[in-house]
Amino acid sequence: MQAEIISIGDELLIGQVVNTNASFISEQLGRIGIDVKRITTVGDSDTDIKAALASSLAKFDIALITGGLGPTHDDITKKSVAEFFGLGFEFNDEAFENCKSIFARFGRPMPDSNRSQGEVIAGSLVLQNSCGTAAGMILHGLAGHDNKFVVIMPGVPYEMQAMMRLSIIPYFQPLSKTVIKHSVLMTTGIGESTLAELIGDEQKFLTATSTLAYLPSPTGVRLRISTRGTHAAAVENENASIVQAVSSRVEKFIYATDDVPIEALLGKLLKDRSLTIAVVESCTGGLVANRLTNIAGSSAYFLGGLIVYSNKSKQGLLGVQKETIARFGAVSEEVALEMAEGGLELTGGDIVLSTTGIAGPDGGTIEKPVGLVCLGLATSEKLDSLRITKKITFGDERLRNKERFSQAALDLARRAVLGLHLT
Amino acid sequence: MQAEIISIGDELLIGQVVNTNASFISEQLGRIGIDVKRITTVGDSDTDIKAALASSLAKFDIALITGGLGPTHDDITKKSVAEFFGLGFEFNDEAFENCKSIFARFGRPMPDSNRSQGEVIAGSLVLQNSCGTAAGMILHGLAGHDNKFVVIMPGVPYEMQAMMRLSIIPYFQPLSKTVIKHSVLMTTGIGESTLAELIGDEQKFLTATSTLAYLPSPTGVRLRISTRGTHAAAVENENASIVQAVSSRVEKFIYATDDVPIEALLGKLLKDRSLTIAVVESCTGGLVANRLTNIAGSSAYFLGGLIVYSNKSKQGLLGVQKETIARFGAVSEEVALEMAEGGLELTGGDIVLSTTGIAGPDGGTIEKPVGLVCLGLATSEKLDSLRITKKITFGDERLRNKERFSQAALDLARRAVLGLHLT
Repeated sequence: MQAEIISIGDELLIGQVVNTNASFISEQLGRIGIDVKRITTVGDSDTDIKAALASSLAKFDIALITGGLGPTHDDITKKSVAEFFGLGFEFNDEAFENCKSIFARFGRPMPDSNRSQGEVIAGSLVLQNSCGTAAGMILHGLAGHDNKFVVIMPGVPYEMQAMMRLSIIPYFQPLSKTVIKHSVLMTTGIGESTLAELIGDEQKFLTATSTLAYLPSPTGVRLRISTRGTHAAAVENENASIVQAVSSRVEKFIYATDDVPIEALLGKLLKDRSLTIAVVESCTGGLVANRLTNIAGSSAYFLGGLIVYSNKSKQGLLGVQKETIARFGAVSEEVALEMAEGGLELTGGDIVLSTTGIAGPDGGTIEKPVGLVCLGLATSEKLDSLRITKKITFGDERLRNKERFSQAALDLARRAVLGLHLT
Repeated sequence: MQAEIISIGDELLIGQVVNTNASFISEQLGRIGIDVKRITTVGDSDTDIKAALASSLAKFDIALITGGLGPTHDDITKKSVAEFFGLGFEFNDEAFENCKSIFARFGRPMPDSNRSQGEVIAGSLVLQNSCGTAAGMILHGLAGHDNKFVVIMPGVPYEMQAMMRLSIIPYFQPLSKTVIKHSVLMTTGIGESTLAELIGDEQKFLTATSTLAYLPSPTGVRLRISTRGTHAAAVENENASIVQAVSSRVEKFIYATDDVPIEALLGKLLKDRSLTIAVVESCTGGLVANRLTNIAGSSAYFLGGLIVYSNKSKQGLLGVQKETIARFGAVSEEVALEMAEGGLELTGGDIVLSTTGIAGPDGGTIEKPVGLVCLGLATSEKLDSLRITKKITFGDERLRNKERFSQAALDLARRAVLGLHLT
């Protein structure tokens, strides 16, 4: 099956919002063997929405429309699509109750305009919105377009994402004839081209029905191995043997074999071993703690942390020696180690991670450029009283540096827990 | 003038890469009054590229094509466009010299395939690439498409961005007759529909040449007011008077009049007043600190913070009374206040923000549901020794709750600094 994504919204056309919805939807559909062949973005214009829909129905099996489902006057998607097919509206009690319950939960009165959130296109399959007020819809078996599917979703990313996962993927999965298997190898601490060099000539292990994609991000490169075919078992086998071939070449850099962030993986390792962790952050400014606490249930192993931005707080709160700072500088492996040791004493955790560095854009020198980070790790007797430091230089963009610093810190903890810190 | 952006690349259709190019191009063109009316993404397919180009020429004045200009076999844009217009190629020495010089700079031998980087479509205006090997082109005055413009740019974001700034905007600026003005009002602490209700009937202040858009996100709703016309001064005036009308209706909820996150705005307020801030976070787990330190130069006012996840650390590090926790619970305004006061003593900051709440998905009760947050704020004498607490209930999604909790905390600090905490 072939699909088009139609994104609706003036904000996308004037460059105010980046269309992250389209890539999310494409990726999700790809997993169930549905190919997105075109992505079209138009504004909140009745004529343009109808033209895009007509063009899509003429070429593809599925048109997935996002955006323009809110209760305000510039939200016209529902009306335009209904008119296009000559359909009316019906009232969906469940959608309206959902809308009311959201206002109730926030303890706010519901404005009258929200009554429109209960109206859905007549005859559509209604997709309830688990995170917001606008219901989604699937239209199928329409006169003159018997075999086509039109999907309408909200444009707010997290609402759309939940609807994709809970309703739309389960709906289309049984209809897709193609079997597709995606495997993922999560790597960190190595760049895309070095990884490609280690993996070497793909012809040696890749088949005609499989692909290997490198998906770089500030936290690492995901390797995605995709195999498609018509028989599930054959596809599984082919995919597994390619995963094996790739893994064996870059094993050292793989931290997970499914698509999880390293903080989730680390959390699981800690929980399984009844270990606790605390953080002492300078240059990452709370990001390491924030990532650790993004994981539900992290209070089982995350004790807390300190964000020590100034030299004074490094000394006062953590007991870093004034002399160490004077001699080696605040950004040094020596200070990172004293920070981690101070944190160990203060929090009583089994693992304490520390970061000190220069995120940028200012503050760099020739010896200590923007992008430099020094990491420290100290562990309790339970984990062999390790003392490790590490020094890495990344790039010059502040937010990307913070991401990379935090990733390197979390990977350091992972390696220590697994006894891989010596390799 | 009306334009379409045609983005080319399989990586965009499988969700591997987010199309940030389109929003950049749209934003740049909008500034010179050129409207992007459609954005189309297709794969590296000759048929699909030609179909997209044909559809674009039929509707719009300018087609801007990005991607597929590299030297490898899957880069077919140049060939498809040339064939579409029945044009041949010519060799551009300057483009080839530029390509050679880039390899020379990196000290790498140039593969033979790169000779193709010197080939441009015959009769095109060649745009040299200041950051990469692929030249851009502008085609105009083509037989059968006299008044149309076709622009070809590389897909690598920073190469495309430089070409837009250095060549394409200067080329089109004198040709554009429209003036356009976008203004933004950043609101927080109020939902989209309640905002719409306060703003009321738009007909009372909106003109035919202006629009008002509501752009919601977990941290608040942006209001965008756009005005277009032919005379710069008239457009500015009209836009300003609408901004004024909207502002006066929802003033209380507006934190900025340009598109900045609240942590940047707060940072500026603190810096201008030589005030310092520290944070004491429980449920936000470092996110408030992380957001504050995302701003370059934040070390001027951000002192640091504590992440106190456990009751033990709330007591031990901050001096929260055991009795307060026992009587009111860890998630209470009373504990939030003692946390903020403890932080004030420990850090010596002018403002200390505290958060304690239930981010979810687990840990909620009937009295204290998931989504509940208690915020505390304590200030030094420099800021009137304020003691403020606030209790809000948000939704049930952990990461979104953390976003909203942190936004509410930052807004509380902003209001305190501006003396708006009493309103």
